[in-house]
This record gives sequence, structure tokens and C-alpha cells, in this order.
Amino acid sequence: MRNRYDMQLHLLDTQLTHMGELCETAIAKVTQALKEGNTEQAKIVIKEDEEIDQIEKDIERLCLKLLLQQQPVARDLRRISAALKMITDMERIGDQTSDIAEIIISSKWEKMDENLDKLTAMATGVSKMVRNSVTAYVEKDLELARTVMNDDDEIDDYFDEIRDQIIQLIREGDGRDGRKLFDFIMVTKYLERIGDHATNIAEWVEFAITGVHKDSAVMH
Amino acid sequence: MRNRYDMQLHLLDTQLTHMGELCETAIAKVTQALKEGNTEQAKIVIKEDEEIDQIEKDIERLCLKLLLQQQPVARDLRRISAALKMITDMERIGDQTSDIAEIIISSKWEKMDENLDKLTAMATGVSKMVRNSVTAYVEKDLELARTVMNDDDEIDDYFDEIRDQIIQLIREGDGRDGRKLFDFIMVTKYLERIGDHATNIAEWVEFAITGVHKDSAVMH
Repeated sequence: MRNRYDMQLHLLDTQLTHMGELCETAIAKVTQALKEGNTEQAKIVIKEDEEIDQIEKDIERLCLKLLLQQQPVARDLRRISAALKMITDMERIGDQTSDIAEIIISSKWEKMDENLDKLTAMATGVSKMVRNSVTAYVEKDLELARTVMNDDDEIDDYFDEIRDQIIQLIREGDGRDGRKLFDFIMVTKYLERIGDHATNIAEWVEFAITGVHKDSAVMH
Repeated sequence: MRNRYDMQLHLLDTQLTHMGELCETAIAKVTQALKEGNTEQAKIVIKEDEEIDQIEKDIERLCLKLLLQQQPVARDLRRISAALKMITDMERIGDQTSDIAEIIISSKWEKMDENLDKLTAMATGVSKMVRNSVTAYVEKDLELARTVMNDDDEIDDYFDEIRDQIIQLIREGDGRDGRKLFDFIMVTKYLERIGDHATNIAEWVEFAITGVHKDSAVMH
């Protein structure tokens, strides 16, 4: 019995890692689509989001089975409850990459060369945060989880910079279509939200390890 | 057996109606919070989104049970498959009301009196779309479903108007903080997205009734 339980806990780690990788892949693909203005690639991102939704359900089922059949206590109970919360944030990360993809498809997307490096840096940054948050869970690495939380400040700064710069551009009467400039801010906003969700994941890892959760009231 | 099946189908209608009502309530509460700049109310919206997530899972379980145990065909099969897709859109509506609530909480929220009527009209409009789309499902009312799809044009127009007006305000060097003006556009964007999801629901109702779905490739 104990052996089967350990195997299921191991399976949970494997599936969470896989779900994290699907999120990373989605971010990478949508970033490519942003750079190229590639609507076909964007459609693939939306299609593949269904896989992320599916694995969320698989993991949820596994967690509930573990909770009901094994009645875990203390650390294991925290690990499984944390996993249940983490997958909601990962699912939202998938939604947000789809939201970005929809902006590309709505055909108003126009990349801004002067901000593209920052946008790419943001995408790379949030992707790393997602990977590190899941690794922190699997390897029970509290320091790594806290690194993720700190990294989010940098993402927020990028967002503020890009938004303020674009507002400034609009103010100065930049010749470009205001709506397209706004879409660029929106994409940046969605990337910033992905960073928020990775931070939520890291906070659940902290809870799994320490038993203390920063701010469960505003978590969802 | 048949009797129990009909009861389960009826339960499905009841639960979908309840999920739709939870979405409407969330939109009403977040609109109130927007008008009052009420962060406490916004926190309640985020908290109650968990209930929407929960009922999504309950309905999904019921649909899967119906599909597996009853092996429905033709119209019933379409109804149950449509329900499975509709709840994903309703769950996203809950997410988007939470996203609006988070903007209010992030304390940068400042209502713009000159646009508040339009924003309220949008919120009322999308709320009605949600209600009508679910009613169209329960009452198998194709006309009502098509009304929802048409109503979405009006919501899109509101969004375009508010966005363009705010971009214009920024251009003209409006004294207000550009970031707060941007938050106002974001809230409007989230309301517009809620309208998109209600339209998706209406398209699934059309599928349930006619067997034809407009554009399943870009649905998620």
C-alpha cells in the first residue's frame, strides 16, 4: 500500500512537471508568433491550450484520489493541497497565452520594434519563473521558490516601463494607430499576469514546505 | 432507467442555470465595486469565484457520468457536449470578473465619471447576454441564442468607443494619470471579453439545437 502511495506521489510530480513544460512551450510559441505576427502559430497556441486544460483535470483527479484513499497528513497533505492550487494557476497561464494569441489573430497586431526586446525579455522571464516554480515544488527547494517571487518584481517593472513608454508615445502624437499601441500594452499586461500566476505557484510551494501561506485570502 | 436519465438531464439544466446566475451576480457585484471604488466588495468577488470554479467541476462530472453511463445519441449527445463547452466559457467569465476585481484592489482604480455610464451599460449588457445564452440553452431557443450573438456587436462598439476616447484623452494631454486611464481601458477590455464568452456559449447552444457549430477551430 505504502509503495503504491509513493508511486502516486511520484506520478504527481511527473505530471506537474509535464504541465509546467506545456505552459513553457505555450509561452515560447506565442512569443514566436508575436515576433513574426504569425496567426497560424497563434491558432496552434489556442488549440494546444486544450491539452493544458486536460492535464489540469488529470492532476486534479489524482490529487483527489490521493486525498480520499490515502488520507495523508502533515507534509504530504500540504504537498497535495498545494498541487491542487498550483494547477489552477497553471491553467490560467495557459488561458493568458491564449488571450495573447487571440490578439495576434484579431489581426490588429503590429509589433513595435523599439519594444520588442523588452517584450521578449519579459516572455523569457515569466517562462523561467514558471519552470523554477514547478522545479521548486518537485525538489522541495524553498530558496528557488523565493527566487521566483523576487523575479516577479522585474517583470512588473518591465510592464510599467512599456506601458508608460507607450502612453508617452500616444501623448507625443506618435503616428501609429492608437489601437495597435494599446494592443501592445495588452500583450504586455497578459505577460505580467503570467508572472503573477508563477508567483502564486511559488507561494504554494512555500506553503507545502513551511506550512505557512503568505496571503491565502486574495489567492484564487 | 429512462426516468433517472431524464432527471439527470433536468439536473444539468438546473445546475447550468445556477452557474449562469453566479456569473451574473459576480458581474453585478464587480460593477458595484467599480462604481464605489470598493475594494472590500472586490475581494468578495474574487473569493466567490471559487464557487464558480466548483460548480464547473460538478457540472463536468455530471456530464461525463451522463455520457459514459447513458451513451446518449443525436440531440441529447449534442446537448451534453455543448454543456461541457459552455461551462468552460462560464468559468472564464468568472475569471474575468476576478481580473476586474484585482484592478480595483491594486488601488490604482479611479473611476472616470464621463465614461461610467457607458461602462455600466456594458456591464448590464454582458450580464444580460450571459443570462440569455443560458436561458436559450435550457429553453432550446435558437432565436434567443442568435440575439446574444448580435448583442455582442454593441458591446464591441462600446469597447472601441471607450478605448478610442481614452486614447484621445491621453493624446490631448489630459491631466489624469495615464496609468489610471489605462486601467479603465483594461476593465472595459475584460467586460468585452465577457461578451465574447457569452457569444461562445450562444454558439454552443446553436450547435446543441442545429448540430452545426460556427467555428469550432478557434473555440476554446
